[in-house]
Amino acid sequence: MTAEADREGAASSARVTAVSAAVPAVDAPPQTQPVPWPHLHLLDVDRLTRPQIELVMGTTDAMREVLARPIPKVPALRGVNVTILFYEASTRTRVSFEVAAKNLSCDVVNIAAASSSVSKGESLVDTVRTIEALGADMLVMRHSVSGAPYLAAEVFGGSVLNGGDGWHAHPSQALLDLYTLRSQLPGGSLEGRKVVILGDALHSRVARSNIWTLTAMGADVWICGPSTLLRGFEAWAARGAAGRRFTVTSDVDAAIKDADVVMALRIQKERMASGLLPSLREYAARYGLTQERLRAAKPDVIVMHPGPMNEGVEIAADVAVDPRSVITAQVTNGVAVRMALLYLLAGAQHHGGNA
Amino acid sequence: MTAEADREGAASSARVTAVSAAVPAVDAPPQTQPVPWPHLHLLDVDRLTRPQIELVMGTTDAMREVLARPIPKVPALRGVNVTILFYEASTRTRVSFEVAAKNLSCDVVNIAAASSSVSKGESLVDTVRTIEALGADMLVMRHSVSGAPYLAAEVFGGSVLNGGDGWHAHPSQALLDLYTLRSQLPGGSLEGRKVVILGDALHSRVARSNIWTLTAMGADVWICGPSTLLRGFEAWAARGAAGRRFTVTSDVDAAIKDADVVMALRIQKERMASGLLPSLREYAARYGLTQERLRAAKPDVIVMHPGPMNEGVEIAADVAVDPRSVITAQVTNGVAVRMALLYLLAGAQHHGGNA
Amino acid sequence: MTAEADREGAASSARVTAVSAAVPAVDAPPQTQPVPWPHLHLLDVDRLTRPQIELVMGTTDAMREVLARPIPKVPALRGVNVTILFYEASTRTRVSFEVAAKNLSCDVVNIAAASSSVSKGESLVDTVRTIEALGADMLVMRHSVSGAPYLAAEVFGGSVLNGGDGWHAHPSQALLDLYTLRSQLPGGSLEGRKVVILGDALHSRVARSNIWTLTAMGADVWICGPSTLLRGFEAWAARGAAGRRFTVTSDVDAAIKDADVVMALRIQKERMASGLLPSLREYAARYGLTQERLRAAKPDVIVMHPGPMNEGVEIAADVAVDPRSVITAQVTNGVAVRMALLYLLAGAQHHGGNA
Repeated sequence: MTAEADREGAASSARVTAVSAAVPAVDAPPQTQPVPWPHLHLLDVDRLTRPQIELVMGTTDAMREVLARPIPKVPALRGVNVTILFYEASTRTRVSFEVAAKNLSCDVVNIAAASSSVSKGESLVDTVRTIEALGADMLVMRHSVSGAPYLAAEVFGGSVLNGGDGWHAHPSQALLDLYTLRSQLPGGSLEGRKVVILGDALHSRVARSNIWTLTAMGADVWICGPSTLLRGFEAWAARGAAGRRFTVTSDVDAAIKDADVVMALRIQKERMASGLLPSLREYAARYGLTQERLRAAKPDVIVMHPGPMNEGVEIAADVAVDPRSVITAQVTNGVAVRMALLYLLAGAQHHGGNA
Repeated sequence: MTAEADREGAASSARVTAVSAAVPAVDAPPQTQPVPWPHLHLLDVDRLTRPQIELVMGTTDAMREVLARPIPKVPALRGVNVTILFYEASTRTRVSFEVAAKNLSCDVVNIAAASSSVSKGESLVDTVRTIEALGADMLVMRHSVSGAPYLAAEVFGGSVLNGGDGWHAHPSQALLDLYTLRSQLPGGSLEGRKVVILGDALHSRVARSNIWTLTAMGADVWICGPSTLLRGFEAWAARGAAGRRFTVTSDVDAAIKDADVVMALRIQKERMASGLLPSLREYAARYGLTQERLRAAKPDVIVMHPGPMNEGVEIAADVAVDPRSVITAQVTNGVAVRMALLYLLAGAQHHGGNA
Repeated sequence: MTAEADREGAASSARVTAVSAAVPAVDAPPQTQPVPWPHLHLLDVDRLTRPQIELVMGTTDAMREVLARPIPKVPALRGVNVTILFYEASTRTRVSFEVAAKNLSCDVVNIAAASSSVSKGESLVDTVRTIEALGADMLVMRHSVSGAPYLAAEVFGGSVLNGGDGWHAHPSQALLDLYTLRSQLPGGSLEGRKVVILGDALHSRVARSNIWTLTAMGADVWICGPSTLLRGFEAWAARGAAGRRFTVTSDVDAAIKDADVVMALRIQKERMASGLLPSLREYAARYGLTQERLRAAKPDVIVMHPGPMNEGVEIAADVAVDPRSVITAQVTNGVAVRMALLYLLAGAQHHGGNA
């Protein structure tokens, strides 16, 4: 670690202390808490300042404590109506938000919409207006069109939480990944850590949101995959961004060498048809995360995957269950992070937050 | 307004006062309330007397007050099991009933049934018997076959609420439309108001139920659409009904002229194939509710739509969001009306209501 | 009844008394109860000893008492998360578990999975691990592959309840059938009673689980159907099993003669294509349970069906609603039995139960 990074680390610690004082007492309703959280919506992580990210992390700590209780529930958001509107199939993210909301004593309504019924922007707007008129205070949505939650946020009077939009963003996933890494890394800091995101970055909202938070926290992020699946990232990396460290490569050996963290991305089999990917077998041979490849990383490398996994394709089955894999911890932390996000956004509603 | 209508209005006010006294204190369970509501089921509005309609309106006022609270819930129906059985896709009506039931502290079970599995009447009967045996006290159902809820009510021991059956009836929609109009019209009376229902009346359960309640409350109802979509209504209008005012026409200009209210109906695109409708473009040109057409109505005309809208077809996008549009209020009032209906029917169960 | 059976009956009564003392006070959480229930999972009935079956029966009695209350709920399992993961369509079993869990104040999450997404065993394992990481304490699952819940139980840290796996087992159905029969039979004993299971035993998990419990309780079980649908059962019957009485035949008259109980099985119409079944009409003519056939049984024969019924095929409509039919009671008892099972398994989690 450089002297500069060291100073930054110290500054970061100071900030953590300052922020910790502000972490809400999450058993009580957010409107009773003087929490400096300004955002009404969670659309992507790029609107979050570093102190705000720290506040999410600190609030998530408090939610983890709730989850460890015999009855893992608090009455904090009693009477708050949460509607979960998913235009794409999902088990993990949908259930994670549902459990998170119920743990805070929200009432939850699920709507599984077929994408076809909202082919026009106007229809999405009508749907969102209707959901608000039906009494929803918070709207968690997933949509195949990038940017759809931004449109929803323009018309919805409550809070919109982006549960994944097209290739664009998956902010709660990036925050749970960050929380998981901070829990696992010695010292709890990403500063100067080499984090490899391996796979189909082109179509991955998980990759885009993670690149933002990980570089914001000082990580040295490497994106690695077939060159057809890295389009646009090289230009992004070359442009640089206020001292963020960000490397793009198709050289899997160079990427994994001495990595602190390797996050494998899900390969979507429908990409095959578009000619962007060779066969699954060839992909697995060239880019799959195997024990052999992992030997080039640091001995205590952390293995991540956002799920659901294609075992034997982007990740070998024995890597997925390796002691260094934190895939299950990611899922559990997801519930706590989403509890924190619902709590903070509900507070912003009462304190007059902006978008 | 004629002298006769005037007297009727006065009589109506007197009745309203008389009924108001009977509006239940909805924070408490209905069995503790001396409410004169006799119906165990809500199958259509044609079984409701005018005082009973007034009671629904007064109870809805009480539920609106509940919805305005910081925590919009009452324990009134705690322990009551509500099953929502929908054989047709729906977001708005299904969620509206679900939210209404949860606001009253009911337990809610959703069943989305494929129409195919109940092609025979016997199967529907078995399904309803099973739902009762599983513990349901109230059954909200939507079915593509007109009359299906009547069959269900014959075998179900609790209360059946018709959430829409074929082309036949949609009673909770008619009651929420009525409530919305009374809230919006000066004096809160429909007496002598010109209400235009514009569109595909033939296939519309919304139209059928609305015609009943609106004429019962003294409105001058006009049904307007392509003549192929008005079959049967002319004969119905010609027969007359105890002084109800009811006009059927294909002349959109005559219909909208001096209208107090225009309610556009959803055009279902599958009607195209049957040859009953010209192209959507031609329909929009000849019958679509545009700002231009609306200029012939009264300046403070009220615009309604039961949703979901095909914007640019039966209603122009700028009309849908015009300040005179109450489409969003319809949705919000829908939750309150359904809370009132669940409450009143639950009371009839305890007081020994009839069908 | 033979002298031997008589002695067995007396022994059984003694056991019932002994066990009754152990029936938990189900208003309170199971961890506060000294209940001798060792099983963490409910995978099939073949792991249950007779005293354990008696304990389920006694606990179900207590749950029936809860269901008879004005508000049929107890706080016993508050804070317990139940996930219902069904890879096959179901209304009755899914809703029954959902209502049972809610009556015990559990939080319930429903996941309707398409079978296709879990074609590989690894994926099911990942799904189950994810569900656990999301906070589930109990997992109710139905799967088209026999044995899938056993695989799930190997990786799930909480309790797995088999809601039906392939042709293999449906333990909660067998237990509710047993409970229903004990409630209906004079003396509450199956000892020496002739119970006929009529229909497609080959593809029936209901038949397999029922054969086990019914013979365990001393019934004289007859399996009857077309010989193509009895494959394997004859060998099973011939092998015998510790004094269990079990006859296999295609002779419907011999089977029904003097029967105490006839349970008709659902015919799945897709079996037709495989050539295992003649036409539905022929099946109905040769094996359908009609009033005429029923005349050969004892006058107070009990008629059962696990549902959903194909009326006019495996059971005549007038038989289904005959006063001797207990089909509706089966459904109601199903909720109580599942409450008992959830309660007992939750207790085993606290008391360190085994698989």
